[in-house]
Parts: sequence; structure tokens; C-alpha cells
Amino acid sequence: MAKKPLLLNAFNMNSVGHINHGLWTHPRDTSTQYNTLAYWVEQAKLLERGLFDGLFIADILGVYDSYQQSVELTLRESVQWPINDPALLVSAMAGATQHLGFGITTNLSYEAPYLLARRFSTLDHLSQGRVGWNIVTGYLDSAARAMGSPQQLPHDERYDRADEYLELLYKLWEGSWEEGAVRRDKAARVFADPARVHPVQHQGRYFKSEGYHLCEPSVQRTPVLFQAGSSGRGLRFAARHAECVFVSIQDRDSTRRLVQQLREELPRAGRAPEDVKVFMGQTVIVAPTEGQAREKWAEYRRYASPEAGILHLAATSGIDFSAYADDTPLIQQQPSNGIQSAISRLSGGRLDYTLRDLREDLALGGRYMTVVGDPQQVADQLQQWVADTGIDGFNLARTVYPESFVDFIDLVVPELQNRGLYKTHYTEGSLRHKLFGQGHHLDARHPGRAYRRG
Amino acid sequence: MAKKPLLLNAFNMNSVGHINHGLWTHPRDTSTQYNTLAYWVEQAKLLERGLFDGLFIADILGVYDSYQQSVELTLRESVQWPINDPALLVSAMAGATQHLGFGITTNLSYEAPYLLARRFSTLDHLSQGRVGWNIVTGYLDSAARAMGSPQQLPHDERYDRADEYLELLYKLWEGSWEEGAVRRDKAARVFADPARVHPVQHQGRYFKSEGYHLCEPSVQRTPVLFQAGSSGRGLRFAARHAECVFVSIQDRDSTRRLVQQLREELPRAGRAPEDVKVFMGQTVIVAPTEGQAREKWAEYRRYASPEAGILHLAATSGIDFSAYADDTPLIQQQPSNGIQSAISRLSGGRLDYTLRDLREDLALGGRYMTVVGDPQQVADQLQQWVADTGIDGFNLARTVYPESFVDFIDLVVPELQNRGLYKTHYTEGSLRHKLFGQGHHLDARHPGRAYRRG
Repeated sequence: MAKKPLLLNAFNMNSVGHINHGLWTHPRDTSTQYNTLAYWVEQAKLLERGLFDGLFIADILGVYDSYQQSVELTLRESVQWPINDPALLVSAMAGATQHLGFGITTNLSYEAPYLLARRFSTLDHLSQGRVGWNIVTGYLDSAARAMGSPQQLPHDERYDRADEYLELLYKLWEGSWEEGAVRRDKAARVFADPARVHPVQHQGRYFKSEGYHLCEPSVQRTPVLFQAGSSGRGLRFAARHAECVFVSIQDRDSTRRLVQQLREELPRAGRAPEDVKVFMGQTVIVAPTEGQAREKWAEYRRYASPEAGILHLAATSGIDFSAYADDTPLIQQQPSNGIQSAISRLSGGRLDYTLRDLREDLALGGRYMTVVGDPQQVADQLQQWVADTGIDGFNLARTVYPESFVDFIDLVVPELQNRGLYKTHYTEGSLRHKLFGQGHHLDARHPGRAYRRG
Repeated sequence: MAKKPLLLNAFNMNSVGHINHGLWTHPRDTSTQYNTLAYWVEQAKLLERGLFDGLFIADILGVYDSYQQSVELTLRESVQWPINDPALLVSAMAGATQHLGFGITTNLSYEAPYLLARRFSTLDHLSQGRVGWNIVTGYLDSAARAMGSPQQLPHDERYDRADEYLELLYKLWEGSWEEGAVRRDKAARVFADPARVHPVQHQGRYFKSEGYHLCEPSVQRTPVLFQAGSSGRGLRFAARHAECVFVSIQDRDSTRRLVQQLREELPRAGRAPEDVKVFMGQTVIVAPTEGQAREKWAEYRRYASPEAGILHLAATSGIDFSAYADDTPLIQQQPSNGIQSAISRLSGGRLDYTLRDLREDLALGGRYMTVVGDPQQVADQLQQWVADTGIDGFNLARTVYPESFVDFIDLVVPELQNRGLYKTHYTEGSLRHKLFGQGHHLDARHPGRAYRRG
């Protein structure tokens, strides 16, 4: 493939509502079966048929209780609640596939590093090197209260703690067991060579640990590291640790600026600008003709819930939109500067942006960039986004499940392949090798590599 | 089946060495493949062919470092280290089976209740009600140090904390979502009825939590609760919470007394003596004839590692046997009363018991009761153990894997079935219903039921 290949993850969550809310009520949508194995195993097979690089599974701890100061609509529309554990899905899907990667979101704020290290090593063993970790630190006070704290750590301190957390994980994943430590030698009665297995010593500000990694090295050792921070502190964290960054901004200019900032930040962490792949959240509605695609879009909108989309946005932005009037510009209704700037980001700077406008923007129940058209139009637009912003690929959100993924695979994938923009077969090897083509382990510039021993 | 059916779990661990150490070196043993999906999926199918009630997976956090004050032999013989996470195996095995139950060991000392609740609910959803939780509180200081504490909580306090932990879990599993809360009603746009979903309020000595259970109710709500405590405090905990108790004592009298104590303790917790099923750890070597079985036993012994068995025992008993002379009675070499009584338990009270005797008792690398014989002899002995002790069934340890399970299924299962002592097909329904025949949920006398709402 001469051109830079477009990377593609499917984006889902172990829940009913994920990004495009309300579509669970569509007669053909099966996302209410999220709690069954068949739902996930069939999904993994489908995505592998479409040569997707991975299935990226979001997660949230806590519930959305800020809109109308209530969980009522959250439950009625199942807005990311109930939400089951994503990591427990992996072994079934790995068993049903050969190549598909699995990007699992785990919030590090409430998990012990020693145990999280074992979980990801286990998944990497079972999937033979196909696991990524989407590192999040959480943002909901409802999670902190459920965990017994009155509130979370402040935003930037969450990242300080996460930096140290990763340092301890690298010691476990990269440093505790040397290459070649495991012999599996029956005749010599040596499973592992004790001289090549080392205890970790960690005495930090947030963590102490003295002990060995419980697992022998897996194919990738450290899972492929995903991250989605877009604040200044979040970007510095990403530049140090992330191999894949996920962005979900709706406008081209902001996306381009963020990608550029990230690539500029990487050398400051001793890495190269191309050491990180950037994925953008994307919704696609495609049909054989443009007319059919627009009909489908109109049909989906009849089932979507813009209000549930607003509820979700209320939780992520901290703005309780239920208190706002429909037609008065949001910015006039809000005296606080912090919230004004959040509204300005939402509206792309439009000062006359109202709740009615927001509801229209959320017509499909979510705020991801939505592309509607025939296969050529969709491919054109995806290609243009890559050209305009410098991203490497997309996290494709579902609308009506599974048909939105099926449509993409049957219609858009062949078009992208015809243009030489998408692989026609998988590369052998681990998820990391598939994404970067430089072997199974963290690349030599990644700071995690410095913890390797022997 | 007229007679009381014998219950049967296979006993394994997400590691190479489990109970009968050293047998990984046997040419036909495949336990070094513990870190592959195929190992577990094939195992689950095998056990379901044998109509096993469940696969019970042990776990340990920390490493065995007390024998010779070193991890050298632990690594060489792979004595429960490396050890991968057992919970992550379930979805693959559940997808490959219809009926087999999964008893997953999780140490509650280092996991947040709010997250552990979600993990087991998720597993119960994915397996459609086939999950049990073996509740352990841990016993290794090496785990505490790896988790950043200088040592563990004292033994009895670990159980006090576990009692409160379970109380919080019952609030989440049983109390947060009423029956009928989930509607999945597309036409009415009601996924769940907010009036039937309740926040948990918990302000205890060890835990605080304010929030909702993240998961909708699974088939069993609370997983089947397994426990293995045999101390006074452990028995009180078991009598309150456990539905299945696992014992691993080698002599008949002690086993009978423990079973009796447990059944006497149950009414004090408001429950009936038969509300708990007791499983005994058991090793079986069977062949078509007694002679062949004895030959197999002798052959296995050539690969087993009694020393690795002693190392394991050193860790569980706290006695570093490496410092002891071979032929001097252990009890004479040990001035501490605490250790003398531990040795007395090991030796069944024999005052002349030496390290050489121990090594002979550990000829198969582990200390479980070992039955060797033809199918009739094995069935006779298992039957006799049940009659003598009042246990309900066995946790069958592996020797050479998979052949020891295959042999049992091909030879012993049909013999037990002929005697009317073992099921000839599975009962439909959840693991709890299969074991107790009283529906999917905690029985009405179980204290967890008191937390139900609505």
C-alpha cells in the first residue's frame, strides 16, 4: 500500500447507550443484548471480517446524575448505565478471532497497580499480544463517592499520580522478568531461571511496592497504550506514555491544532512525532446511494434521543442544560466564565448558540462528527479529514447496531481499499506490530523501555 | 437419582504448579500452556463432557519466598508463580460450554467492593448465571508488601473487614436494583424504571460507599459464594456467608469434625445445616486395573517434586522446613509452640514425624488425600469418604494434565453413575440452581437476602 494506511477501530462500550443515544429503541438495534456473550463474539467476528485494527471499548465508573440533578433519564435511556466490566469480554472475543485488537478502558484511579499489571498481562497472554489499554483517570464525582471519597483528586494531580502509576507498571511489565527468563525446560526441571527474575522496588509519592510481577512476560509485555487527554497536562501525559491517542473534537481546526500540539510535545519526551497514532471519534451513515443514506439518517433520527445526548454532555461538561431556556443564547444565560468557555467550545465559538441549536446538533443522540453519504462520499470525507488534520484513523461509533458496522464494512471498506487507503489483509503479529510495524515491544524511544533489565 | 448425588468440581489454577508439584515435567503434562486460551477452552469442554458441576480456580497474590528465604525453587518448579488472573478466563470458557460452573477465587483484601461487585455481575451476565466466587482474604506478607503495606491485617480482623465487605456487596447485588427494574421496552422508551433503582448508602468501619450498582441484576445476582476458612473465625464467616465450603484436610476424623462444626454453626447464623455444600480437595489416580493404577502412580512419582511440595507447605504453614534435619522428629527441632502445633496437625499427631516422612507423604508433590486404584476401588473410597465425613463432594486436583481429568471422566464417572451417585445429565438453570435446586437466587435464609428491596 503506497499511501499511508488509514487505521480503524470500532468504538463500543459494555452498555446499551454509548455515543449516539436513544438508538437502542430502533427496531433493528440489538444493543440491549450488550450483556450476552453472543453480542460480543459476533461483533468481534464481524469486525475481523472488516479488517478493523481493533475494537476499542470505553468505560465509565459512576453514573450521570448532574442533568436535572437526577438519574431518571440516565436509566430510562440507558445512558452508559448499566455498564459492565469491559476487560472480562476479551477472552471470549480473542478465542473467536485471530487478528482483531482489543483496546480496553480501565480507570487507574481505583485499581492497585500490582493487580492492574496482572490483568493486562493475562489478557495479553490469552490474546497472544492483541491488547491495548486506554488509560483514564475518571472525571465523575459519583464514582469517587461510590468508592468512599467525598471527591476526586484535582485534575492535574490525577495525572501526576498517573505518571507515577505508569512508572510502577513499567517496572513490573518491563523490568521484573528479563527476556529469556522463562525456559519451560522439562528435562532440566527449570521453568524459569531465578537469576533473570527481579523484584521491583518502588517508593514514590503515591505508591509503594516491593515484589515481583506475578506474570511471565506476555507477547507485548506492556499493552499498547491508548490515551485521550486533551488538556495541557493531559497532552504532556500522552506525549510521555501514549502510543495511540483518541480525540473526539468536532471541528477540523481544533483537531488539527491538537494533533500538531501533540506531535510537537513528543520530542520533548524524547520521542518522535510519528510515535503516536491519532484516532478520531466518527459516526458514519452510509448506503449505496446518497439518497438512501439520507433516508437512513432521517429514519435513525426518529429513534435517537437528543435529550439523552444533552444529558451525556451535561455530565462531561459539568453544565446542567436542563436549567436553560430553549431560544436564548446559552452564553447569555450563564454568568460563570468557566461554563461560558465550555459553551464556546461546544458551539465552535458561536455567540448566538442556543439549546435548540444544541438539540439539533445532537439529532443523532451524540456529538461526534457525522458523515452521511454513499461510499464514495464517505471515503472522500474521511480522506479529507485525514488530510486536513493529520490524524491516522478513526474510532467508528455505532448508531444502529450491528447494521451501522455492517454497512461500513460492506460499503466503505471496499471503497477505501480501492483507493489504496485500507489494508486488504492483516499483518501477522501483535497489535503493536500491526499498528507500528516495529515488533511486539515498546519502541526504543518509549520511556517504558528504560525499565528493561538484562 | 435416589441417593444423595456426589458433587464434583475440577480444581485448577491459572499457573503451572498447583497442588501436585513437579508434574509439569511429565512428558504428557501440558500445564505449561496455562497461559493460552486453548488450554482453558479445551479444559472446560472436557469437564462438561464429564458433567462436572464446576471448574474451581484457585488464586494467590504474592509469591512463596519463605522456603530457604528465597524464590529460587518457586521459580524453577513454578510453584503457583507465574500466576495469571483467573477471572479473565471465564468468558472464553463460558462461550464454549452450556452448563459448567466457574468458581473464581478473588482476594477481597486489595479490591474495591464497588468494582468487585461489577466484575462478578459481569461474569454472571456473560455466563448466564454460572459463576461462583471463592472468597479469600489472603495470607502472604509478600502480597501486602507488593501492595505497599508492611504487612497484612491480623487474621481475625481480615474476617471482620470481610464481613463488612460482604454486607456492602449484598447492598449492591441484592438491594440496588429491584426485580422488574429493567424493562427493555423500546416502544415506551424505558430501558429501566428509575423508581426501582436505589442508591446504596454504606458508612461502616472499613468502607464508605454512596452510589448505585453499576450493573443490572444478573441471573444469580450474588454469585454462588465459596469459602475455605477452617479457623474458628473463618468458620463463623463461612456459616454466615458461604454456600459452598472447600476443605483440604487429609484425615477423616478432622474432616468429619470440621463438617460437623460448620453444620452446627449454621443455625446460629439463621441458616439450616444443609444450606452449605462441603467439597473436599482430592487427588485420584485411576486406571482400568489396580496394577495399572499403581504403575501410573509410580510413574507420576518419578516426575513429582516433593521438595516443591514442602516449599508450598512452608508458605502456607509459615515453617521453613529447609532448616530442618532429615531424620530427627520435626517436633524436637522446633522450640516454638505455635510451630509445634502446626507440625502436629501436619503429622496427624505423630510425635516421631520427620522431614523424611513429610517428603514421603508429598511423593506426588502435594498433600491432598490421594486415592489410587481401579474405578471400583476409587468409587468405593470416594463413597466411603462421603459416608465417614458428611462432605457433599470433591474438588478434584490435577496430577498429569489433562490425562488425570480424562481418566477420571472415562473411568470413575461411569462407575459413580452406575451406583446412582452421580448425575447422568445436567439440570437446567444457574449454578446455584444446579447445586441446590431452589432457584437462581440466594435462598430465603441467607443473610444476603435481607438486603433485597421492592
